[in-house]
Amino acid sequence: MSDLRCDLVDAGHLIATGIDGIVGHGAVFEDVVRRLGLVIGRWGIDNGAETVHFPPVMSRANLERNGYLRSFPQLAAVLHGFGCGVHGPFTTGSDGDLSTGLMMVPSACYTIYPMVAARGPLRAEGALVETWSRCFRREPSTDTPRLQSFRMHEYVKLGRGADVVAFREAWIEKAQALYASLQLPFRLDNANDAFFGRPGRLMASSQRERNLKIELLVPIMVGAKPTACCSFNYAEAHFTEAWQINMEDESTAHSGCVGFGMERTTLALFGHHGFQPERWPDGVRQLLYG
Amino acid sequence: MSDLRCDLVDAGHLIATGIDGIVGHGAVFEDVVRRLGLVIGRWGIDNGAETVHFPPVMSRANLERNGYLRSFPQLAAVLHGFGCGVHGPFTTGSDGDLSTGLMMVPSACYTIYPMVAARGPLRAEGALVETWSRCFRREPSTDTPRLQSFRMHEYVKLGRGADVVAFREAWIEKAQALYASLQLPFRLDNANDAFFGRPGRLMASSQRERNLKIELLVPIMVGAKPTACCSFNYAEAHFTEAWQINMEDESTAHSGCVGFGMERTTLALFGHHGFQPERWPDGVRQLLYG
Repeated sequence: MSDLRCDLVDAGHLIATGIDGIVGHGAVFEDVVRRLGLVIGRWGIDNGAETVHFPPVMSRANLERNGYLRSFPQLAAVLHGFGCGVHGPFTTGSDGDLSTGLMMVPSACYTIYPMVAARGPLRAEGALVETWSRCFRREPSTDTPRLQSFRMHEYVKLGRGADVVAFREAWIEKAQALYASLQLPFRLDNANDAFFGRPGRLMASSQRERNLKIELLVPIMVGAKPTACCSFNYAEAHFTEAWQINMEDESTAHSGCVGFGMERTTLALFGHHGFQPERWPDGVRQLLYG
Repeated sequence: MSDLRCDLVDAGHLIATGIDGIVGHGAVFEDVVRRLGLVIGRWGIDNGAETVHFPPVMSRANLERNGYLRSFPQLAAVLHGFGCGVHGPFTTGSDGDLSTGLMMVPSACYTIYPMVAARGPLRAEGALVETWSRCFRREPSTDTPRLQSFRMHEYVKLGRGADVVAFREAWIEKAQALYASLQLPFRLDNANDAFFGRPGRLMASSQRERNLKIELLVPIMVGAKPTACCSFNYAEAHFTEAWQINMEDESTAHSGCVGFGMERTTLALFGHHGFQPERWPDGVRQLLYG
């Protein structure tokens, strides 16, 4: 695995920064990320999704309302400013005036719920949003596909439970077809989020039992441990209750999302098809460059 | 001014988040940002620039080596994790194990110097790098173009002093032609960075006297106060000394950069030409969509 990373660094596709899980990318890698985003985006155009984009930082209050700090404190990161005393040294900490009120966005969909909530009740057909964000999770690792800062391309569906389930089912099929077209080996698995602590283990177990999170796993090269490249999530009323998002007929709205790990999928393309996209298999080139 | 922001929010081009200087963008705004990046990128293709992209967070040690915390502590932001006690509440602060070793990237070029330094001495022709980053500066404001999180597209030139000066002169001309083609009103000004404190006032004064920072200022709408949309910076040996970047003949290397504020320039296009890009003047459409 580390050989793949070294080779990608030598080839200029990855740029080491001295921090685990924080890497730069060269022009060729970036171009593949961009093209992959265009392919994923076509579904949104065909299905009338609204496309929005948010910064990599968001209101801490909004992230707390989403329940993130209860569920995943170990992955969260908050932004602090520096105290500007006239005489140095400058200090930083959690004191009031050093708080920015901001946290790193951990998943692209967290930015969407406040936006949808502000618009009032959902019409019968619900809402369908496409978005992507730079996401951050505090889990430094030497595992090549596990980044602290990465890009996630997502679709979020809010509406009647049956519609959210149908959205997720459609994407489970669509994503398998996509990874088959990219000629990458994959399998689906029933999964759980990395909920924190003892209560978290119960939540994780419940999430698996109720089949709320399904992942599409790809080894980024032959022989590598499979890594989650997409996840298909049915959140039931978790976010909609937190944000008081209801249907116009006052029935409960549900939400679900599908997220693509852009760097992981791109790494797998380089890992399986080689370092020169112009020599990738015809079908893969047709999809990305055709 | 706030009327423009309200109108842009109503039109779906901007999305309020409840935090000053943190805004989301709709699909039309994003598409203009992307097309503007392609126009700026053409110069790099024509001039053999290397294109790289880095995450919005970087090593605090590298940013300190660049001198950022001495010069701009008031704008800086550091990332802290949360302490994961078995019994709540979770805490955050500057304690050792809660540090991530990361700070927000304040300007795209700060990510470049460590990369170039790691490659060893510069050949006679120097290095030319194109990059863009999500940048963060802790200056919450209700001023529409002043964002805390924004995108900066940059070219960085490192090499002999005369070559860096020539690079900057070329871009001062090129950028004026670009903003003229975008049919935006602008003027150039001799400027200074927002250096902190009493010693900072001396640095600012020196920077102005030595003509090291020139800005291209654009009012984002008729009657608005001009705001810096590009800056043209000659850093002399400031960064190259910090990173011990030398020429192969062991003479001192200099550096300079030109940076474009992508949201500011895009705001000015909407502010001057209206909210429907399909109705923008022919010359502007030709450049962005032609």
